Amino acid sequence: MTTIHDAPDEFAEDQLAGWLALYADRVRGVHGGVVTLPTEGAEPQVAVVVGGGSGHYPAFCGIVGPGFATGAVVGNVFTSPSTAQVYSVAKAADQGKGVVLSFGNYAGDTMNFGLAAERLRAEGIDTRIVVVTDDIASADEESKRRGIAGDFSVFKAMGAAAAAGADLDEVERLGTASNAATRTIGVAFSGCTMPGATEPLFTVPDGHLGLGLGIHGEPGIEDVPLLRATELADLLVSRLLADRPAGARTRVAPILNGLGDTKYEELFLLWGRVLPLLQEAGLEVVEPEVGELVTSLDMGGCSLTLQWLDDELEPLWRADTYTPAYRKTAAPIAALLPADAVDDAEDEATVVPDASSASRQAAQTARDAIDAIDALLREHEEELGRIDAVAGDGDHGRGMVKGIGAARKAVGRVGQEAGVAFVLGRAGDAWAEFAGGTSGVLWGAALEAFGRSLRDDRSAYEASDVVEAAQAFADSIVHLGGASRGDKTLLDALLPFVDALRSGVDAGRPLTVTWQAAAQVAVTEAAATADLSPKVGRARPLAGKSLGTPDAGATSMGMILTRIGEVLAARADKEGTHA
Amino acid sequence: MTTIHDAPDEFAEDQLAGWLALYADRVRGVHGGVVTLPTEGAEPQVAVVVGGGSGHYPAFCGIVGPGFATGAVVGNVFTSPSTAQVYSVAKAADQGKGVVLSFGNYAGDTMNFGLAAERLRAEGIDTRIVVVTDDIASADEESKRRGIAGDFSVFKAMGAAAAAGADLDEVERLGTASNAATRTIGVAFSGCTMPGATEPLFTVPDGHLGLGLGIHGEPGIEDVPLLRATELADLLVSRLLADRPAGARTRVAPILNGLGDTKYEELFLLWGRVLPLLQEAGLEVVEPEVGELVTSLDMGGCSLTLQWLDDELEPLWRADTYTPAYRKTAAPIAALLPADAVDDAEDEATVVPDASSASRQAAQTARDAIDAIDALLREHEEELGRIDAVAGDGDHGRGMVKGIGAARKAVGRVGQEAGVAFVLGRAGDAWAEFAGGTSGVLWGAALEAFGRSLRDDRSAYEASDVVEAAQAFADSIVHLGGASRGDKTLLDALLPFVDALRSGVDAGRPLTVTWQAAAQVAVTEAAATADLSPKVGRARPLAGKSLGTPDAGATSMGMILTRIGEVLAARADKEGTHA
Repeated sequence: MTTIHDAPDEFAEDQLAGWLALYADRVRGVHGGVVTLPTEGAEPQVAVVVGGGSGHYPAFCGIVGPGFATGAVVGNVFTSPSTAQVYSVAKAADQGKGVVLSFGNYAGDTMNFGLAAERLRAEGIDTRIVVVTDDIASADEESKRRGIAGDFSVFKAMGAAAAAGADLDEVERLGTASNAATRTIGVAFSGCTMPGATEPLFTVPDGHLGLGLGIHGEPGIEDVPLLRATELADLLVSRLLADRPAGARTRVAPILNGLGDTKYEELFLLWGRVLPLLQEAGLEVVEPEVGELVTSLDMGGCSLTLQWLDDELEPLWRADTYTPAYRKTAAPIAALLPADAVDDAEDEATVVPDASSASRQAAQTARDAIDAIDALLREHEEELGRIDAVAGDGDHGRGMVKGIGAARKAVGRVGQEAGVAFVLGRAGDAWAEFAGGTSGVLWGAALEAFGRSLRDDRSAYEASDVVEAAQAFADSIVHLGGASRGDKTLLDALLPFVDALRSGVDAGRPLTVTWQAAAQVAVTEAAATADLSPKVGRARPLAGKSLGTPDAGATSMGMILTRIGEVLAARADKEGTHA
Repeated sequence: MTTIHDAPDEFAEDQLAGWLALYADRVRGVHGGVVTLPTEGAEPQVAVVVGGGSGHYPAFCGIVGPGFATGAVVGNVFTSPSTAQVYSVAKAADQGKGVVLSFGNYAGDTMNFGLAAERLRAEGIDTRIVVVTDDIASADEESKRRGIAGDFSVFKAMGAAAAAGADLDEVERLGTASNAATRTIGVAFSGCTMPGATEPLFTVPDGHLGLGLGIHGEPGIEDVPLLRATELADLLVSRLLADRPAGARTRVAPILNGLGDTKYEELFLLWGRVLPLLQEAGLEVVEPEVGELVTSLDMGGCSLTLQWLDDELEPLWRADTYTPAYRKTAAPIAALLPADAVDDAEDEATVVPDASSASRQAAQTARDAIDAIDALLREHEEELGRIDAVAGDGDHGRGMVKGIGAARKAVGRVGQEAGVAFVLGRAGDAWAEFAGGTSGVLWGAALEAFGRSLRDDRSAYEASDVVEAAQAFADSIVHLGGASRGDKTLLDALLPFVDALRSGVDAGRPLTVTWQAAAQVAVTEAAATADLSPKVGRARPLAGKSLGTPDAGATSMGMILTRIGEVLAARADKEGTHA
């Protein structure tokens, strides 16, 4: 959604006014757009005037500044600026060395920039046009292709050339060469919503992506099933490599561009898949950019651009620039010491302490329980996340799955000679390490305490030993977490469980049935936390919202204790015992 | 949606791996996070280690670099890193001058960073903790507040102090002072979706916003009705001013932060509303930041942070830094010449040419028609946008509304002494100027041509004069747009209209009924464009999708011609004529 505005009709003007107020120390607003303030003492240079509609920030005004565009024309959202706007900005940007107008290949822009160029020429201002045509999905014939994220690469080349003192012919020539060397392919996951509208301009069918996106709310040219990141990287890279320009060398300047709703972390993840593919193809990557450079309001999607470098284009791509939205300075990076080969201190080979046969058998039960809890939590991950999201941060399901998964992996690496204390110690370490968060620390410490209480050297385990271990489990959480019963935490399920377990065992009832009965108490008490207000943790500020929903940690605790009861029962059945 | 991943469980690790590959020239990955490469020849400095969960980029690894954080611990999405991760990053970041650990105030982070500090101290590394508590909505008591976008301000102060050579006591003191001076309030428009999930962690009720957002998918503390930008600015500023810290002066460093889905343009627009409120309150704004600094995946919303500056904090806020996601250098801005007072060349007073009485009467009909078309297009704006969005950029409705609105305003400024040529010339200029885009240029030029054909000096207008004017209207579009009949443009409605109008008038039928009949032809032909494939314009690459939907420009042309027919009929009724 594009939500913030006063009047949708005035969105483009209003956002530009706010932007101009923000950057009044470096740009000035003119009719139709912005121009950079000149650098004191600098020679006049060729004016590189870029532009198009609004809704693409940092394109186009965000890249006005030393080393990049001299001016930007700012149209309405997704709409070409008018001829008069282009003319006005170009007049203001002109420093007496001529003007290059550059923009993506769309009919409206071509017409308005073209008419403005005629008017500028009629006034004696030498004006050239460089049209960007990087979108390989939009047409086979290069001159008919649209301009999308490759705008950035082509504008950068011309801005750097002009700043370095190239004359008008040269800036135009380098712009044309840069465009010929620049190719982009993109995918859309979801449409963008115009200011004031409630529905997106297009939608992508569920479970699909639109291949060949536009940056003005045009849907993809073809809907294909949604891809995993690795497959998506392969699609983008293979399409670009198949469209390699004639005479291309091996050095490329990539842009992995986000359209708005697709976030930085997703782009970084994808870059981790794209880079090896480029390297496998024998390419050398030069100062790649991964981020939002040419957006389309809040559209979901991304595109991959390659500019195929040569000896002329590479220094232009690398050149310093300092604009509101894009800043690049070689010096601070050049001053860094190169990364030493870091010794990843791997886990030292661990000596497994001797364990009794009973402890090894108990360890097997622990392994079975961990397997069962792993399956349980995966099954309930989303449900636990939803419960947690009512008044918390929604990470409980994810954290528990990561914790138990890490514990299970760690236990899998421990040999069968290990006893229950060692196995649960390893499980707890891994849980805390990989689940992170409060519950990760608590669960990790508690598992370790449970195992330590059971010990590796006992010749047999009584039901009362299990009660003491459960008590140690609970004590460690109380100690570390600092919460009490009634605070709406997992303790509201755990403490009644321990009490019930102890009473049943003290009364001489068999462990398994006692555990199962006590787990039922935990489930009931977990449900009853719906009536409580949280006193600690992230959920505290949302105490009001939390009423009516049980605590996620207490809920998962009830589930897990119940599942352990089932594991104990299965073991008892197998052994024909009820202890 | 958070869409790009291979396995949701591995999202945090995978995105970090991609990020590390991207910035291998300036950071190195260590267990649990990243540290900056040291600058050659630089003195050892206090290590400022920040962190928290993933999903907040640029927080936290994006701000690791010279002048900012020394290291960042990277947890799972929205989850505290583990104690071992914090310990590992701090060990790697330590340069022998001690470590400050800093993070937002959440239970998991407090626990894990706290345990890591104990372990570091046990090894003889002097370690301090600075907890960020900027979110004024989360609690009344300052020490219980959450840390949100103010993380950025507090980390920046410490990073700058450490880079400037402050010792550990001093960095800690300045961090604490910076936190005490930093306040944030935020609003959520929509929830964020965890990697692999299909539903957001929370939703904001339609037509509402959540006041007091969290950055981990916590919903707002209170749902309030959605506000216009001006009202939202007032809410944010007034809440912050009401919570001004004791002893605060008048200089503030603001951050207007986007959470992910709320785009740059929206933030700029809002900044345009916030800045005057701060100024009215007597505050001086110092180097404000507007953009995405602490995000929450793809959450919709924003927050306003004020750091109340004093003589110590201001230079730290202004200091140079160069990190992957945040770069600031005073020199390029200082070198710019100050903006001259730009002479906004206002429209010169225009001499209205003499006009005949008939021309002034025709001008009144033109004014009536413009009013009627304005109402018509406002009514159909969304519908036209939807038709255009099927295979175009969805801007047709918006562009037409802006065009006719500008035309209507321009005409309103013209005195009653003006004739029809002058009035339509003004209308056309304004339409082209404010609608932008292809259709804006075409409509503007065509209106001007229509008026020029009618002239201002005729003593009477015949029906055949109107036919010639309609022909001139169409000719200008053919000439400028370069399209032909059958290309799926507005010409497919307009050209048959002109033909039908000419035939009817040639056959001696009255103008009004002929116009109405011809307009009906235009509507029919517009509908028939559904069977055509586009040959020109932005819709061309989407030719396949376009089949089955009529052309938006032809559709609006049919509507407008019909509405003009109604205006002519109303005029004829009034005059008792049928000419």
